[in-house]
Parts: sequence; structure tokens; C-alpha cells
Amino acid sequence: MRTTPTDLRTPIHLTDAEVFAAHEHGKLEVALGAPLDTKRDLSIAYTPGVAAVSRHIHQNPDAARHYTWAGRLVAVVSDGSAVLGLGDIGAAASLPVMEGKAALFKRFGGLDSIPLVVETNDVDEIVETLVRLRSSFGAVNLEDVSAPRCFELERKLIEALDMPVMHDDQHGTAVVTLAALANAAKVVGRELASLRVVVSGAGAAGIAVAEILLRAGIPDIVLLDSRGILSTDREDLAGMKAEYAARTNPRGLAGDLATAIEGADVFIGVSSGRVGEELIARMSPDAIVFALSNPDPEVHPDVASRYARVVATGRSDFPNQINNVLAFPGIFRGALDAGATRITPEMKLAAARAIADLVGDELSADLIVPSPLDDRVAPAVAAAVIAAVEAAR
Amino acid sequence: MRTTPTDLRTPIHLTDAEVFAAHEHGKLEVALGAPLDTKRDLSIAYTPGVAAVSRHIHQNPDAARHYTWAGRLVAVVSDGSAVLGLGDIGAAASLPVMEGKAALFKRFGGLDSIPLVVETNDVDEIVETLVRLRSSFGAVNLEDVSAPRCFELERKLIEALDMPVMHDDQHGTAVVTLAALANAAKVVGRELASLRVVVSGAGAAGIAVAEILLRAGIPDIVLLDSRGILSTDREDLAGMKAEYAARTNPRGLAGDLATAIEGADVFIGVSSGRVGEELIARMSPDAIVFALSNPDPEVHPDVASRYARVVATGRSDFPNQINNVLAFPGIFRGALDAGATRITPEMKLAAARAIADLVGDELSADLIVPSPLDDRVAPAVAAAVIAAVEAAR
Repeated sequence: MRTTPTDLRTPIHLTDAEVFAAHEHGKLEVALGAPLDTKRDLSIAYTPGVAAVSRHIHQNPDAARHYTWAGRLVAVVSDGSAVLGLGDIGAAASLPVMEGKAALFKRFGGLDSIPLVVETNDVDEIVETLVRLRSSFGAVNLEDVSAPRCFELERKLIEALDMPVMHDDQHGTAVVTLAALANAAKVVGRELASLRVVVSGAGAAGIAVAEILLRAGIPDIVLLDSRGILSTDREDLAGMKAEYAARTNPRGLAGDLATAIEGADVFIGVSSGRVGEELIARMSPDAIVFALSNPDPEVHPDVASRYARVVATGRSDFPNQINNVLAFPGIFRGALDAGATRITPEMKLAAARAIADLVGDELSADLIVPSPLDDRVAPAVAAAVIAAVEAAR
Repeated sequence: MRTTPTDLRTPIHLTDAEVFAAHEHGKLEVALGAPLDTKRDLSIAYTPGVAAVSRHIHQNPDAARHYTWAGRLVAVVSDGSAVLGLGDIGAAASLPVMEGKAALFKRFGGLDSIPLVVETNDVDEIVETLVRLRSSFGAVNLEDVSAPRCFELERKLIEALDMPVMHDDQHGTAVVTLAALANAAKVVGRELASLRVVVSGAGAAGIAVAEILLRAGIPDIVLLDSRGILSTDREDLAGMKAEYAARTNPRGLAGDLATAIEGADVFIGVSSGRVGEELIARMSPDAIVFALSNPDPEVHPDVASRYARVVATGRSDFPNQINNVLAFPGIFRGALDAGATRITPEMKLAAARAIADLVGDELSADLIVPSPLDDRVAPAVAAAVIAAVEAAR
């Protein structure tokens, strides 16, 4: 299904009653790949037939991928420490979100997925838990883990597990943001590399967005956290913030958003902070504003549109929804189909290009990314990811 | 479907080719409980709608059971240390068996189930892993864990987790064995309590069979391990074996199987050891022989039938198959439906009675348990388990 701008601007009003009714007994089910209706069926799927398969995997460990569901199974893992806009609500309360994520993997990526929520916020304990379970699944989608722990957790999991691992709040957002920005640049007739970009928010999404924009060849990126512009002059920075203070801000700016946004071409908000109209007014002509905080964008898109030529949000009831579902199903599907054990920067860039390219001739200021319901997206992303894996071999 | 003796004696010949073909990409799938085809669907199952459900669970932790799939989800857990007759083949190689088990839960119990295989044989590490994941599922079926570790593991998990936990190799076998023995006793016109029972094998199944027969009121049970009869005179026994040496063997026998089986009414083999025809010949008239080792019964049923009036095996191609699938789907279904946090001895006895009762008027020496494909079984077991839970409240 493709969604044109005429479908948009239709706010969706949900009642608590219908939301809770839809969540009774959860949103996922396990289904059988084949019927179990005869003694023969039972003898094949369970004893005595299954013994031959177990013996074979014991002798050929690589065969496990092929003869179990683990080779197409994504574990959606969270400790519930940064769930949607709700904060640290814990593992149990995060489970409905992770079930929803698993459902999206199935619906859009054709991948099976199970939510695993962990009752610890200790990075090493989470790693240890998943290492012990590593034969049970084929990939890990980290979700809703608070920064800066999410960076350490993703890095350690990538080191410890011989399978694709991705923290979607970082890289899913980054991939779709780059796709949208590439198309927005086309709309305003600019080269990506020439853009001056401000990223407000230096958490999971902000750091990953800065990283992918650097990889995409944009040198002038200014990142801000709640205390202002990340710069090497600041003595309060450590970890990823210190690293990106050194890799961004080439003009050596210091100060707050008012300083950063003066004359900027692009504003990307991933902070949930509010941005006043008077700041948007200071951007360059043909500005691009991505106000991605949900449900309340940093600046209302109608206000931003007074000054910016292209505006995007994270919401489904405005044009240009930057929705991670455009990226993660296809990225994991491609990685698993290609037998990749890592999700590399090249795979993410390829995914972003594939998403951007799908818009094609429909490109306009109000249509810079495909609809999240566009069934062409995940296969195109998967194909691009597979090509990137093969190019690296 | 009900299976009468005329369906039996049909050996099932499986080729490796068909078994491996049936296992390509595994045997389980995840399915969506509701379609995700519109923006409205997405808004309900994922953001923004799901936030209300997560917030509600955060404030009311008990609601997680109702608003996620965890309340009907059984984790099938193994460390791969005692898989079928294959021994310690490890977690990855055990996964096809656990997938099959999960499929049986779905097919017969209507429960969703995911296999979780752990790459450690350390009991405390397995407990720790499942405790960390405890919000992800509603019950634990332990499977194919070697003795004596399985006893400690089950005990510690029951203590640590506020949900039904059962090691099926122990209790599933025990429940179905008791059901079969109750009906076999009817066939030969004996009271259960009057039977002299020999249990050959003091591993997971043997200990659990002894336990449930004691609970069912049979005082004269003699248990044997590979060194002979468990008795309080033996100085080489520890743990569960020492405990059951004290609780069984009321006549204080010492020696090997030849001593134990002399004049016995019931032989239950769960050891994979061979039993010669000359030993079966020493049993009492109207003897009952359950030769449950798979795929090679301790004594061939045709041989046992020369001396015993009722013979059962673990195989599907002889009459009276003692198959755990008669028990575990209904036990877990009943426990979860009743909101039970423990699987008690009373629930197991109720399950055994329900299985035995289903045979009804069809009872004969060749039909002491229902067919594993009999769809009446799991609902009847679940109902009996629920009644047992309610009776205890």
C-alpha cells in the first residue's frame, strides 16, 4: 500500500477502551510451520524423527541456522529503561512495546521475532544473559535502553555475539533520517555535503544520526545536549558525547541552540525539548526541519512550515513521518538472509539509499519518505543490505 | 481423534530426507494476533497507543499477565545435557527437540511456547538467566536436563520464579505412568495400593515415578539404579537417591533386579537397561510391564506379553504408548488458566486421574491410555488441574 499526501492530515483518535481491548492476552502467537495431526507428523517433528536433526547439528554446528527457527528469529530485547516517552518503567511494562515491535518484524520483514525483556539494568548482566541464550535466536534488536548505557551494551553485544545486533533507537532512526534528509536536500536543490546540520539531542538517536550523517559525507554537524553545543572546550563531557564533540562542530561553536541554529540549513530534533518559532526563523532560506520527538514535536510542523521548505515529524498525522519501521525489518531481513554476522555502516547507508530511492518521481516537500505501510520498502531495504554484504565479501 | 487398537501395530518408517526436509528453517513461526494493515492498526499495536498499556502495567504489575502474551506463554528450557537418547549434545543441537515440544504445546494445549536453550550447565546460572527473563513468559517447562542436576534446577527455579515450573521428563512421565498403572490395575482386578512395584532407573523419570506412586498410595515400591536396589544400607547414595532409598523399599531388599522382580506385580523400566525374559518370567501372575525406554524398550513387548497381562511402552507402534504429550499440555494449560504459581502434587494426581478416566468403557489390556492424538485429553487434564487448584484455595 502506498500513501500519498492526500491520506495524511487524518488524525487518529484512539480510545483507551479499544487500545486495551486490542491488548488482551497480548499481540503475538506461536504457530506451527506444519500440521501435527497424525502419528507420522508427531514422529517427524518430535521423537523419534527429530533425533536425526539434533545429531546432525551436534556434529555440524553451522547447520543449526538452517534446521531451526533461530536462523530467522530476531530477539527484541529491552530492559525497559527508556520506553517510548515513559522513561524507566521496567521490563514487564515494556513488554507490550516489544510485542508490538516483534509484530512489526513479522508484518513487514517476514521475520519471526520474540520479545525478551530483562529484569536488570546492568550492561554486563544483559550481555551475559544473551550470550547464554545465543543458540535460541539469530539476531538481536535492542530497544528502549537508556543512554549512555545503550552504547556500551550494543558494543559489548556486537563483540560477544556472532550475529547481527542493532539498537534500533539509534540506527533505525539514523537510517530513516538520512533517507529523509537525502530526499529533502533534493527538494531544496542542495548537495548533502553542503548542508549545515544541527542535531538537538545527544542521546541514542542524536549520536547515531550524527554518526550516519558523518558517514554520508556531511562535515558540518553541530550536536547539542541539554547543556548546549557539544564542543571540545566543554569539560563536562565523557564517553560518546566527548567522542562526538571531537568529530563534529568543525566551526568550533560554543553556546546554546540559538548559536547553533543561526543560519543552519537543517534542524533535527531528537531531544523532546521545545524549540521556539523565533529560533526556526533564524535558519537559512530553504531550511529543512525534522522535529522528531513523539508525541510532541520540538516545534509544531505548521509553525515550522512558515520558515522551512521541508518539514518532517515522527507522527503519522503529518506529512513525512520519520518512522523506524521503514528501516529495521528490511535491515534485519537482509542481514539474516545474507548470513551476515554484523550490521556494518555500509549496510545502514545502503538501507537509507534504498528507502530514499523508493520515493522516486513522487518526491515533493510533502513526500520525502515512503509510507510506513508501503510494502515495497522492506524488500527493497533487504535487497540493498544483501548487496552491501556481498560487495564487502 | 481417538485411536483404537486396530490403528496400532503400524510401524512408521521415516526417511532422513523427509525428516530433514520437514526441519528446514525450523518448525515454529510467530503470528500476529490481529492484522497490522492500516495506520490505525499500527497506532494501536505500537506507538502511540501501546503507551497506555505500558503505563498501566507499570502502575499495576499484575496486569502484565492479562495485557501481554506472557500470561499464556510457556518457555521450553533446556541446556541440552540429556537430549532424548543422545546425551549431552549441547544447547544448539537440542533446539529442534525444544521446537517440537513448543509445537506440541500449541497443538494440544492451545498455549504459545518458545524454546530457550542455554549454553551453560551450571544450575545457578540457568536459574539466574530465567530470573532475569521472568517477565517474558508465564511458565517454564524444563526439558532434557541431566540427573541429578535436574532435581536441583527444578527446585531452585520453583523457589525463584513466581510461576508454574515443571521438569517434564520427571513429572510428565510420572503422571502418564500413574494414569496407565491405575487402568492396568483395573484390567487385572487389583487395587493400586496392593501392587508390588519395581522401578528400574533412578534418574529423572524413575525418581518422579516413585514419588507419584507413593503419593497415589502405593507403599511397596522398589527403585533400582545401575548398581542395584536403592536401600538405606547402601553407602554410595546421596541426594535424591538417598532420600528415596529411605522412602521406598519397605521390605528392605538388597541386591539386583533379579531380587527385586521376584514376585513383583509391576515392572516399570525407565533406565534403557535390558531386562531378560527369564526375569520377566519371575513376576507374579497378572503382571504389568511398562518398558518405557525409547526407542528400545527394556524388554520387547511381544516377549513381555508371554508373561504379563498388560504391557506398555514409550513407542507409538505398540499398544499402550506412555507419551508425555498426554500430560504436559493440559497441566500447563490448567495451571496458567487457573492463575496457579505452582504445580502441586495434587494437580499432578488430578491430571493422572483425568487421563485414566478418559479411556472409560474402552478399557482393555491393549488400551489403558488414550491416544496421544486424542483431542479430548488436554482439555480434560486442564479442567482437572483447574479443579485441583480451586479445591486448594
